[in-house]
Amino acid sequence: MARKKKQNAFYAQSGGVTAVINASACGLIETARQHKDKIGKVYAGRNGIIGALEEDLIDTSKESKKAIAGLKFTPSGAFGSCRYKLKSIEENRAEYERLIEVFKAHDIGYFFYNGGGDSMDTAHKVSQLSETMGYPITCVGIPKTVDNDLPITDNCPGFGSVAKYVAVSIREAGFDVASMAKTSTKVFVMEVMGRHAGWIAAAGGLAAENEGDAPHIILFPEIAFNQEKFLKKVDRCVKKFGYCAIVVSEGAAYKDGTFLADAGSVDAFGHKQLGGVAPVVAQMVKDKLGYKYHWAVADYLQRAARHIASETDVEQAYAMGKAAVEFAVAGKNAVMPTIVRKKTKRYSWTIGEAKLADVANVEKMMPRNFISRDGFHITDICRDYLQPLIKGESYPPYKDGLPQYVTLKNEAVAKKLKTKFKV
Amino acid sequence: MARKKKQNAFYAQSGGVTAVINASACGLIETARQHKDKIGKVYAGRNGIIGALEEDLIDTSKESKKAIAGLKFTPSGAFGSCRYKLKSIEENRAEYERLIEVFKAHDIGYFFYNGGGDSMDTAHKVSQLSETMGYPITCVGIPKTVDNDLPITDNCPGFGSVAKYVAVSIREAGFDVASMAKTSTKVFVMEVMGRHAGWIAAAGGLAAENEGDAPHIILFPEIAFNQEKFLKKVDRCVKKFGYCAIVVSEGAAYKDGTFLADAGSVDAFGHKQLGGVAPVVAQMVKDKLGYKYHWAVADYLQRAARHIASETDVEQAYAMGKAAVEFAVAGKNAVMPTIVRKKTKRYSWTIGEAKLADVANVEKMMPRNFISRDGFHITDICRDYLQPLIKGESYPPYKDGLPQYVTLKNEAVAKKLKTKFKV
Repeated sequence: MARKKKQNAFYAQSGGVTAVINASACGLIETARQHKDKIGKVYAGRNGIIGALEEDLIDTSKESKKAIAGLKFTPSGAFGSCRYKLKSIEENRAEYERLIEVFKAHDIGYFFYNGGGDSMDTAHKVSQLSETMGYPITCVGIPKTVDNDLPITDNCPGFGSVAKYVAVSIREAGFDVASMAKTSTKVFVMEVMGRHAGWIAAAGGLAAENEGDAPHIILFPEIAFNQEKFLKKVDRCVKKFGYCAIVVSEGAAYKDGTFLADAGSVDAFGHKQLGGVAPVVAQMVKDKLGYKYHWAVADYLQRAARHIASETDVEQAYAMGKAAVEFAVAGKNAVMPTIVRKKTKRYSWTIGEAKLADVANVEKMMPRNFISRDGFHITDICRDYLQPLIKGESYPPYKDGLPQYVTLKNEAVAKKLKTKFKV
Repeated sequence: MARKKKQNAFYAQSGGVTAVINASACGLIETARQHKDKIGKVYAGRNGIIGALEEDLIDTSKESKKAIAGLKFTPSGAFGSCRYKLKSIEENRAEYERLIEVFKAHDIGYFFYNGGGDSMDTAHKVSQLSETMGYPITCVGIPKTVDNDLPITDNCPGFGSVAKYVAVSIREAGFDVASMAKTSTKVFVMEVMGRHAGWIAAAGGLAAENEGDAPHIILFPEIAFNQEKFLKKVDRCVKKFGYCAIVVSEGAAYKDGTFLADAGSVDAFGHKQLGGVAPVVAQMVKDKLGYKYHWAVADYLQRAARHIASETDVEQAYAMGKAAVEFAVAGKNAVMPTIVRKKTKRYSWTIGEAKLADVANVEKMMPRNFISRDGFHITDICRDYLQPLIKGESYPPYKDGLPQYVTLKNEAVAKKLKTKFKV
């Protein structure tokens, strides 16, 4: 479907942002600027797809080469992101008609959508607009999610950097606790993201390279929490190593599916205390074993930590943005570039291609053989998979001790439509 | 009191560890090795002063040059630390007699104590053993505390790196929240250390260089918490910038001294929930203003974060260890090296000297003019003071994506005493 006419492109960031989603934006914009014969301007949606629906477009051509290059070092979503999933055409035809109205008004012939599973579903629906609504558009998805749960691609940009943050942090905290355990804290609990899958928690396991290294215990969403087994393991660990460092996934749950985080705490007003599985686990240890504890909740710090991003992750994120443009100008529609792990001894990867139809709404769970038999740690197979993804340091530039992240001008494209659309 | 005879040295780490206390150990041991005419072996106390009392000494001469050099890059206390304050000689003479017994048995003539205010008090008591108990010893304190509350010295090794971690983290999280605020989290709360003084919380303020930058609000222990004023400010901030990023000190308290963290929450068993001012503040915002929130508790991650240590801090920590040895071999007793800020336009510093008697048990509070008039941010004077302390990046070496921190052999010195001492 390679067209003769030069058309504009629309790019949007979708869902939870990461340390490297802007690196994908950087790859996409820099590459699009090299294809001026086919792609006119790249318009970004302000706050994701909402920007398209509300005709709130950002003209990225107004950004300097330097500013765009700076995106490679800047965490978060530079154009704004949102959690908003398009319904099916049958359910909400008005949304699709509106998209076409905006695309037509701004001569948009390319649609790039940077996100996770839900977003690839949206991208897939948009890719079908030619067939379903007679509007020809070239649509390419760009994978992004800290949850690492997209299918087909070996891993997802955004995950490697969270993984690195978590592994580095639990190693550092482990050293800290070990040195004070004689008279102070004996149990340390660090809570990490991952409501459905334990990929991020698993990454913490990389820090434990030798017996006795932190973390000693990982609590996965995949393994039903068994308090008795857990406490026994904590106690054994403290007795053997002097302390116990625990990584717990926010999605850790009992056999009946109740999240540990939801199990009990109420505040002074009787409201259920929201979030925070780490304090729950820590308190449990204190109540049953009596050990002094500390806990940390990394929350957004982990997915925003561009200062300790994985070089592999940054390169892959950039490459996905670049590949998306190359796919599009080659006339490919309804696809997503993927990361393909090569069968080399030393880790290497190349770019593959997946159909959006095969990616949309499929969650890749962590295989059971990535988790040790007792359910409290990772296996060597898991380690071999994860390790290359955190490899390399890609430091941002600093000034006066602080990383110099860019904030774009984000100039709005003049509206052409008289109609308004409220999401 | 420069002696003719060569004697061994005792070194101990005390109190909460930091990202750079091992850099002081590195400076001390490397420098001691250059003064073999005066200092024999450097024995480290296993788990701090407890190691001296229990005659559990570590022979640092068994560590390779490479391992000792690696301490400069390794967070935590490599020999173990403890929270243990010696009582006065009147109250517990037995402890001092035991120290002398151990020092005599191992020919220890130098005592180096690396810690904060309490530790400088202990060091001061030890420095008086010649006078009070007739045992000649040269005692030098080495400043260390993330709390930055030692007097006389311009700042304390350990603080600059926490400060950098906090400023970098809130900047990154701020970018994250800003990009999602349209449809998601509008208020983000990050809890940092500092039960008595707001130095660490203040450091978060460095991230806000322009209007609208995170953090928008800092809650200091020095400023009585006023819920009404606070909520008004949060609301204004969300309305103006789209979101609000808050740094809260664990020591934030109401006018009557009640910690916010202690104000209310009980778990399912009716126990008071320990720690966690961030969720309390976040819940308050949710209850009163209805904004979606997230919160993070950095806890030990902040003081162990060697991966993002301040170069200034690392250099000063090393220099303090080095200076301590130089003071000792010059025959100085009952002193502590200090960091002296020079009156140059561009930040520079040199090494000064304080009497332990003047340092012991004195807490340096944050001046009121470091906090803005409304009590929610830092002033330019504060910024000028803090900024140089986070300057420069001192990255540890990495392998396979993880920082390569050293674990010492920590070989025990053969015990010479038949007597045991239980702390």
